[in-house]
Amino acid sequence: MTKSLVRIPPQTGTAFLLTVGDRLRIVDPQGEQVSDLIAFALADQREWLSAGRSIDYANKIYLTTGSVLYSNRSRPMLTIERDDVGRHDFLLTPCSPETFQILYRHQGHHLSCFENLVNALAKFEIPPDSIPTTFNVFMNVEIDSEGQLTIGPPRSKPGESIVFRAEMDLIIGLTACSAELSNNYRFKPIDYEIITGPIEATREKRSAD
Amino acid sequence: MTKSLVRIPPQTGTAFLLTVGDRLRIVDPQGEQVSDLIAFALADQREWLSAGRSIDYANKIYLTTGSVLYSNRSRPMLTIERDDVGRHDFLLTPCSPETFQILYRHQGHHLSCFENLVNALAKFEIPPDSIPTTFNVFMNVEIDSEGQLTIGPPRSKPGESIVFRAEMDLIIGLTACSAELSNNYRFKPIDYEIITGPIEATREKRSAD
Repeated sequence: MTKSLVRIPPQTGTAFLLTVGDRLRIVDPQGEQVSDLIAFALADQREWLSAGRSIDYANKIYLTTGSVLYSNRSRPMLTIERDDVGRHDFLLTPCSPETFQILYRHQGHHLSCFENLVNALAKFEIPPDSIPTTFNVFMNVEIDSEGQLTIGPPRSKPGESIVFRAEMDLIIGLTACSAELSNNYRFKPIDYEIITGPIEATREKRSAD
Repeated sequence: MTKSLVRIPPQTGTAFLLTVGDRLRIVDPQGEQVSDLIAFALADQREWLSAGRSIDYANKIYLTTGSVLYSNRSRPMLTIERDDVGRHDFLLTPCSPETFQILYRHQGHHLSCFENLVNALAKFEIPPDSIPTTFNVFMNVEIDSEGQLTIGPPRSKPGESIVFRAEMDLIIGLTACSAELSNNYRFKPIDYEIITGPIEATREKRSAD
């Protein structure tokens, strides 16, 4: 583990700034965990990560290395630069208290990515209603020919990661997912790091550590 | 054609109110045309139709008779009560000027559903940034096992329709689609009508007309 890795404890979330040109690396330290990612333009928070635009322009639902994540204004926000896993979801909203009630008939309060994102993004004055569909890192959603969805265990193995390059200055929200079904019924942490400067130089620096 | 049908001319859009309990019937008068639908809660326009929540709760991407379209606050907005066609899209954003530039390398201005929705919704003070992924009525998007999308001609035949019941008071935006690929390269109108009162009584009235 590099010194710069930050841990998101199980069933929690965080929010931070990501500068244009910098990389965000998201690591699944124990394997089979999901991390919901959302982004807003720092310059104008009414510009948000759009699943619909991204899927439309990619002409596919499974985004991986080389894919661009677009804003609602059709501007690139993030590019996937590396991807150990190759399976992420961009169809489903972050799990919310209502998710557990409607889908799983859960009684009482249940920690959720939506609530964790709301709380984490509050410091950037992003209201709950502004949180759209998240890019659900490592989430494994299969679609059959009839359009039915099946949520399987993430394909991520311990230590595998995905790297995004910021295409504009961004506010990022990020979680360690709270839904049992998404992470194979074991809540786990998520690690991330922000890599500044040319990525090759960063790699050499790491090898020398 | 019943007297209450309203025509949306080719490559245009409109917006109107729909009262809880009333039905919205959308008709494809000539066949193979797409109509992008969006909804906002009249009581609070920060509550919007959410593709992500709807797909999540339906556990499928192809919504049809019996499916509920949810808001970002996980409340039912519309229920599909009847559906002659059975194939609609809820993955892709309304075509926009950028769609034609990015996907089709179109030069110059191109009429688009997004712009038509922006203009139509302006009277309800809904800003462009608040328009999320639309429910694309009659749009035929196939997904292969690798997640690649193929947009085919709509399956709708002349006169076929879909009926939505409003589950809350709504502001509706609706278009006759402007994208060549979505409507088999021929721009056509879309008809709609608002049906008030019990739907069975309405049917009898129509037969008696």
